[in-house]
Amino acid sequence: MRIWIRNAIIITMEDGDTPFNGDITIEGDRITGLYREEDVHQHQLSSQQFDRMIDANHMIAMPGLINAHQHSPMNLLKAFSDDLKLMDWLEQKMFPAEARMTAEDIYWGSKMSMAEMIRSGTTTFADMYIHMNDIATAVEETGMRASLTRGLVFIDDQAQQRLVEAVDLVEKWHHAADGRITTMFGPHSPYLCPPEQLRHVIELAEQYKRPIHIHLGETKEEVAIMRERYNQTPTQYLHELGLFENAHILLAHGVHLNTEDIHALTGMRGGVSHNPVSNLKLGCGIAPVTELQRNGITVGLGTDGAGSATTLDMFAGIKTATWLQKLHYGDPTVLPAYKAVQMATLDSARLLNIDHETGSLQVGKKADVILIDLDKPHVQPVHEPVSLLAYAVQGSDVHTTIVNGQILMDNRELVTMDEQLVLAEGKQRAKRIVEGV
Amino acid sequence: MRIWIRNAIIITMEDGDTPFNGDITIEGDRITGLYREEDVHQHQLSSQQFDRMIDANHMIAMPGLINAHQHSPMNLLKAFSDDLKLMDWLEQKMFPAEARMTAEDIYWGSKMSMAEMIRSGTTTFADMYIHMNDIATAVEETGMRASLTRGLVFIDDQAQQRLVEAVDLVEKWHHAADGRITTMFGPHSPYLCPPEQLRHVIELAEQYKRPIHIHLGETKEEVAIMRERYNQTPTQYLHELGLFENAHILLAHGVHLNTEDIHALTGMRGGVSHNPVSNLKLGCGIAPVTELQRNGITVGLGTDGAGSATTLDMFAGIKTATWLQKLHYGDPTVLPAYKAVQMATLDSARLLNIDHETGSLQVGKKADVILIDLDKPHVQPVHEPVSLLAYAVQGSDVHTTIVNGQILMDNRELVTMDEQLVLAEGKQRAKRIVEGV
Repeated sequence: MRIWIRNAIIITMEDGDTPFNGDITIEGDRITGLYREEDVHQHQLSSQQFDRMIDANHMIAMPGLINAHQHSPMNLLKAFSDDLKLMDWLEQKMFPAEARMTAEDIYWGSKMSMAEMIRSGTTTFADMYIHMNDIATAVEETGMRASLTRGLVFIDDQAQQRLVEAVDLVEKWHHAADGRITTMFGPHSPYLCPPEQLRHVIELAEQYKRPIHIHLGETKEEVAIMRERYNQTPTQYLHELGLFENAHILLAHGVHLNTEDIHALTGMRGGVSHNPVSNLKLGCGIAPVTELQRNGITVGLGTDGAGSATTLDMFAGIKTATWLQKLHYGDPTVLPAYKAVQMATLDSARLLNIDHETGSLQVGKKADVILIDLDKPHVQPVHEPVSLLAYAVQGSDVHTTIVNGQILMDNRELVTMDEQLVLAEGKQRAKRIVEGV
Repeated sequence: MRIWIRNAIIITMEDGDTPFNGDITIEGDRITGLYREEDVHQHQLSSQQFDRMIDANHMIAMPGLINAHQHSPMNLLKAFSDDLKLMDWLEQKMFPAEARMTAEDIYWGSKMSMAEMIRSGTTTFADMYIHMNDIATAVEETGMRASLTRGLVFIDDQAQQRLVEAVDLVEKWHHAADGRITTMFGPHSPYLCPPEQLRHVIELAEQYKRPIHIHLGETKEEVAIMRERYNQTPTQYLHELGLFENAHILLAHGVHLNTEDIHALTGMRGGVSHNPVSNLKLGCGIAPVTELQRNGITVGLGTDGAGSATTLDMFAGIKTATWLQKLHYGDPTVLPAYKAVQMATLDSARLLNIDHETGSLQVGKKADVILIDLDKPHVQPVHEPVSLLAYAVQGSDVHTTIVNGQILMDNRELVTMDEQLVLAEGKQRAKRIVEGV
C-alpha cells in the first residue's frame, strides 16, 4: 500500500531534530519520503501515485511507541487485585489466576492487550510470558511488531519443558510475520535462575544469536534475597556469570541499582526498560534513569503487564518517567520532554535491537507511524509540540496507527481485529479465570 | 429538566458505599432518586415522567470531579515553557506572558480550560486569578460550578485595587448563576502577604463569612524565605496570625510541612488541595498526604494551572496521588483506590465548603454527575470498577457531564459552548500573548 500523509507536524525523534511541518510517504512496509512543507512542491507528489491520502492537519506524526516490557495476557487480570502488598498480590491473586489460564485465554488476553496498545499508539512491544505460540499467532494477525520471549523459571520439574518451548519459539517465530516478530531468550530474574541454568541460557542465546530479556532489581526484597543467597547484588550476580560480556541484554526495571551495579552495566549492549507506572503502583521505588543515561546506558520505556500497571498507555509512562526524575533531583530541568519521548521510541527500539528498522522516522526505515490529533482543548494551543506530547497527550489522542506500512487503526477504528469480539471473549474469560481466586 | 440514567454502575463516593448497579433520577438541579437494580421496578418509573433517558449500560455513574486548585486562564500558556527552573519559568516566561493578557484573553482562556475540564469529567473547580468578573461570566455561560477567588499579592501599589476587586467579586458573584458560583478571599501566599495585610484579609473573610484560599509550602525556597524573614515556617506564620482559628481555609499544595506544621493544621476547618502533577513537574516534592489524613485533615485534589501541570485531567491526578504515597512509603497498600477517588470528589467538595450540596451522589444533593464509558479495551474487564477509576480511566473516557441537572457534555459533544470558536479564540490569543516573550 502507498500512503501519503499530508500537512503534519513531523517529529522524527532522531537526536537533534526539531519538529517541522510537512509530508510523509510510505510505500510497502517502508518510509520513502519525509518532506518539509516548503519543499513538498518540488517533489511533484500526486494523489494518483498513492492508494491513500491522509490529511494530517492539526496532527503530530511521529514514530510508533515501543513498549519495552510487557506481559500482554495479564490484561485479563487488570484491576483485579490492586492496593495489595507485592507478595500477597503475586501469591494470593496473580499466580492462582494465571494457573487457570488456558492457551486460548492467553491468545484472547494478548489480543485485548494489543487492542489497547494499538489504540494508544504503541506499534511494538516486548513480551515475556507463557504459551508464546498463541501470542505470536495474535501478533501475526493484528499486524503489530513484537519481540517475544518465553519466560524461564527454574523452580520446579517443568524447567526443561520451558526451555524446549523457548528454543521452539526462537526457531519457529524469529523473523516471522513479514519480519515483524523477533525473539529473545527470557530467564525470568536472578532470584529464579540459579547459576548453572542461567549459564545454559546464555549459551543458548549465543548459539542462536538472540538477545536476553530478564527482570533485574525490581524490589528491595530481591536485593536482600540475592545478598543472602550469594552475597552479591542481583547485578553483580549476572555480571559474574558473564551476562553482559557478549549478549544484547534487555533488563526490565533496574530500580535497585547501586553505583557499582551501574558501573558493571556501563558499556553493555542493550540497556534497561524503565517501567515507572508499575514501579510506583507496587511501591518499588524510582529507577536511577538519569544516572544510567549519564553513564551511556540506554534506557527505554515499558509499562509492565496490566496486572500491575493497570494501564498500557505509554503516554502515561512518558509523563511519569520525566516527573519522577524531576522529583528525585528536585529539579524540573532533568529528563526534559524530548528525551522522555525518545525513551519511548528510539531508545526502546535500541533495547529490542531493532533500531536499524524502527524507533524513528527516517527514509528507509519500516513505516511504524502514529498520528496524534491536536484539534482538542486539552492539547491546544500548540506552543511546543514536544512538550504537549510529553505532558498533555493521552493514548486516546492517537488518531491513526500504522505498522510496517499497514494501517492498524484508522481514525480510531481498529482495522485488523474485530474489537467487539475481542472484548466479549476477554470479559467472559477474565470472569471465569478469577472465579474463586 | 428531568433525566433518568439507567443501568449504570453507581459509585456514590460516600464513605462505606460499594458500587452497585442501578438507576439515577434527576429533576431540576437535584438528584431525586438512586435505585438499586433489584428495586427499580418497585418505583414504577416511566419514560413519560422524564425529558431524557440515558442508557448507561457499561458505564460508571459517579459524582463529578472537583478540581480544588486551578488558575484557569493559564490554559493559554500550556506547554509554553516546560523543563525550566521554577524561578526562570515564573520570571522569564509566566509573568511577562501574563502581563500581556487582557480581560478578553482571560475570558477565552478560562473558557478553553472549562472545555477541557468538562470533557474530562470535572464539574466544579476552585480558581484563583485576576479579572475574575470575566471568569465568572464564563462560568455562568458554561454551566460549571466554581469557587472563585481574586488573587491578592502585596508587592506593589496595585494592592489596594486588588482588594477592591476581591470584595467586588464576593459582593457581586457569591451565589450567582443559580448558586453555582461561590467565592473566597485569596491572599496569594505567606511570602507575598505581609502580616498586617494578611490580618486585614482575615478580617474581610470574617466580615463576609467567606473562606480563604491560599498557597502554602509549595517549595523548599518558600520555607527558606519565611525562615529568613520571620524565623518561622510558612505554616507557623499563618498559624500565629490566627488564620486557622475561625475561617474555613483552602490550602493549596502543602508539600513542605513538618510535624509541627501538621500539628498546627490539625482541627482546622477546610484542608489541603494536593496538586501532585504540578508538584512533580516543577520538582517540588511529595506532599505528606497520608500523614495529613491520619491527623484528620481533609486532603482534596487539584491540578494547579495548565501553565505548570499542562494537563487538567483529574484522573491523572488521582493516579499520581496514590502512586506517590505508595512510593513514599514503599507500600502499595497506602492510599487505596477508593480514597484517591474520594479525594477528587467528596474531599475536594469539603475543601470548597460545598459538600452539603455536591461531591457525592445522594438524594437531595445537586445533580453533578458524570458517566464513564467502560466499553473499551483499556477499561475492560471490570473486576473492580473503583480500581479501574483510579488506575485506568482517563478523562477522555467521560461520556456525559451533568452539572446542576444540566447536561454540559452529551456523548462527548459540548452542549453549552461553541467548541470550535473557543479553540480558535484560544489559539489566536495564545500566539499573540507569547510573541516576543
